[in-house]
Amino acid sequence: MSGNHRELLQSLGVNLDLHDQLIAHNTKLHERTHVAQTCRPKAMGLFDEAFHASHGNRVAEIVEYRRNGGKSIGTFCIFVPDEIALAAGVLPIPLCGGSHWPVDYADKMFPREICPLVRSTFGMAFSNTCPYKKLKDAAVGETTCDAKKKAWDLLGFNVMEVPQKKNERDRDLWRAEVRAFREMVEQLSGKRLTLDSLRLEVRRQNRKRMLLQEINALRTATEPPISGLDALLVSQVALAMDVDAFIRAAAELLGELRERIEDDISAYETPGPRVLMAGTPSPLGNAKVHYAVESSGMRIVADESCTGSRYYRDLVDETPVTLEGLLDAVADRYFRIDCSCFSPNHERIEHLLDMAELYHVDGVVQNILSFCHGYNVEAKVVEQALQKRDIPMLKVVTDYSFEDLEQLRVRLEPFREILQAKTGASARAE
Amino acid sequence: MSGNHRELLQSLGVNLDLHDQLIAHNTKLHERTHVAQTCRPKAMGLFDEAFHASHGNRVAEIVEYRRNGGKSIGTFCIFVPDEIALAAGVLPIPLCGGSHWPVDYADKMFPREICPLVRSTFGMAFSNTCPYKKLKDAAVGETTCDAKKKAWDLLGFNVMEVPQKKNERDRDLWRAEVRAFREMVEQLSGKRLTLDSLRLEVRRQNRKRMLLQEINALRTATEPPISGLDALLVSQVALAMDVDAFIRAAAELLGELRERIEDDISAYETPGPRVLMAGTPSPLGNAKVHYAVESSGMRIVADESCTGSRYYRDLVDETPVTLEGLLDAVADRYFRIDCSCFSPNHERIEHLLDMAELYHVDGVVQNILSFCHGYNVEAKVVEQALQKRDIPMLKVVTDYSFEDLEQLRVRLEPFREILQAKTGASARAE
Repeated sequence: MSGNHRELLQSLGVNLDLHDQLIAHNTKLHERTHVAQTCRPKAMGLFDEAFHASHGNRVAEIVEYRRNGGKSIGTFCIFVPDEIALAAGVLPIPLCGGSHWPVDYADKMFPREICPLVRSTFGMAFSNTCPYKKLKDAAVGETTCDAKKKAWDLLGFNVMEVPQKKNERDRDLWRAEVRAFREMVEQLSGKRLTLDSLRLEVRRQNRKRMLLQEINALRTATEPPISGLDALLVSQVALAMDVDAFIRAAAELLGELRERIEDDISAYETPGPRVLMAGTPSPLGNAKVHYAVESSGMRIVADESCTGSRYYRDLVDETPVTLEGLLDAVADRYFRIDCSCFSPNHERIEHLLDMAELYHVDGVVQNILSFCHGYNVEAKVVEQALQKRDIPMLKVVTDYSFEDLEQLRVRLEPFREILQAKTGASARAE
Repeated sequence: MSGNHRELLQSLGVNLDLHDQLIAHNTKLHERTHVAQTCRPKAMGLFDEAFHASHGNRVAEIVEYRRNGGKSIGTFCIFVPDEIALAAGVLPIPLCGGSHWPVDYADKMFPREICPLVRSTFGMAFSNTCPYKKLKDAAVGETTCDAKKKAWDLLGFNVMEVPQKKNERDRDLWRAEVRAFREMVEQLSGKRLTLDSLRLEVRRQNRKRMLLQEINALRTATEPPISGLDALLVSQVALAMDVDAFIRAAAELLGELRERIEDDISAYETPGPRVLMAGTPSPLGNAKVHYAVESSGMRIVADESCTGSRYYRDLVDETPVTLEGLLDAVADRYFRIDCSCFSPNHERIEHLLDMAELYHVDGVVQNILSFCHGYNVEAKVVEQALQKRDIPMLKVVTDYSFEDLEQLRVRLEPFREILQAKTGASARAE
């Protein structure tokens, strides 16, 4: 980090000593998990850069943006409709923490028995190591789980109500919540949304999502051109980067991956079993279970999570010709997200089984953040659905700390052997 | 339990050996916590009976009711509007488990890191010790917390959507959910609700709630005529007993308590500090923290929980003259419940502070079931509100097991001393 950034961070109230510890922790992990891989696409350098920039250049960009009168909001969930904020001239800054380092600092306010994502997010704020703390005009939470919902209350955040069922009346409630969000961001920026401004942002977000779809579709190949760890990093920084900068980087990566497919270049030295990762998100900084799985000899070829397919699967319908129509289209796109917050959540099971088939997976690893009751209880529904299709499954419940890495491997390696034995048996039978 | 009941239970698929263990466990605890008290009102005998009857006579009553064509539903939350079910000829049977004994049996389906209430409820079902398992035509869950919501999905229950905010659109959603519940119970019984049938049940439920209000109001007295343990038992069996039988028993108890007030008869041998219990419910069978608090020399004079004021505070407006109007009045009464599922939940803090004043409490014990994120995170909001009023607070997070009783006392006894020192100091200052 350059000297300039140190001054910048200090001016934002960041505790530099603690911040140095945080960055050292995160950088060391990133080297160990991502950089140490031997067959990475060259374009991944752009995403490594974006990872480091999240506490450097990106901060400087946002400071500059705000100096020129721009407004910004902190967000914590992929239910917050970015295109509406952007169309009103408000920059959404996703603030979900993925680093283990600040977790203990959350104890000031929160119980220890809640998920590491919430604890990491607020641990950053309470340890004064989050450069974005002062770079937002409002914070927008949502009601997707008990711990987050109550955290927003405690901290006096705005809260968007994500309904808990998917009936017509829930869709109407959600459309109204999206309208309330629109008013909130318009008041913040003093700019009214127009059909044109919203359509522009819808197209940009759709472009971003399509690129993620295309990149991930290449993982269906027999020789996946990108590792699970790197595909995760791409999704993670999709949230953190400037949209246009991300689109450029993703297009470059996509080009390189297509070449790799043509040249049969794999991201892996050895072809381990193909695994789908399903469950909770892994925000930027957390790639622990992905690392544990891939360093145990399996290849993650698909991600069913908020930092995976849940983020890019659905596009906004661009055809409505009125602002109200387009607002409904935006609302409806987000309402299709198959979060475990919905009761029931059959769509998720359907999506997951479709992905298992499309990506030719040998098994599924359910990746559940500790104390996430939603995904942890729903894991049983997933397990039952996979059993019916005879797809082996392993559920991993853990936090961000690397302390239990070897314990995870003790479970992951036999799982790999089960998958290998099963694939070998079916190969012999053919 | 008589021989008759053994045959009855066996016919309901109950595993008699395990059921004997469960009953022995629950009875021993009840003797230790409730019966061992030295200054109990005589009428508490009626509620002890109701406690034992929940696995005996009450089961026989419901079997008889169903033999005569009656329908019944299992319920798990005070948001399910009993009066609507009853007016349609459907008996609601509250099934929340309060016993520690079956907790481990829930592991078949559920993670261990969820609240003991869910684990106890399904532990009973999975160990075949719940006599009500076969005595219901449907099960009706709700969306008040992540673990319960996902448990209903997993088990294929009906789910009423309790909204997460209290805006007008949420009230409308809830009114629609109440209408859907009405249709469900009407279909079950084949009976249509009428204004008269609903009004009758509204009045009966209001009568029950008013009796609970009157009984609890007497606890504001300098010498509370009923202990916290016994007041809890009254609330607990209010859910389990036949409504009319409960009304008769509660009226008898109320009469005796009024005489005690006149005669200055306390439920306590020694006048310890006055405590308000706030937080999660204690379903029938669980009185652990109440016991820990009172056996540590404090007097519980008020309960802010679903097995306390949340259950009886609000009455249904009986004045509407149309069925639709009365249905709205029922819905609106339930919508006033100040569950931690709502964001924000300012009403709860107001109610809690009002109670602290009305009941002249010296301190508050927050009683939080393990892994209940809603009340556990909201506990910080409660703490902050109490600090402003200079009301001492202790938060206890625990499950149903008595294993940590001494650990709880190690924290409760110094808390009692703090309250005594504070009361002594203010008495000297006067």
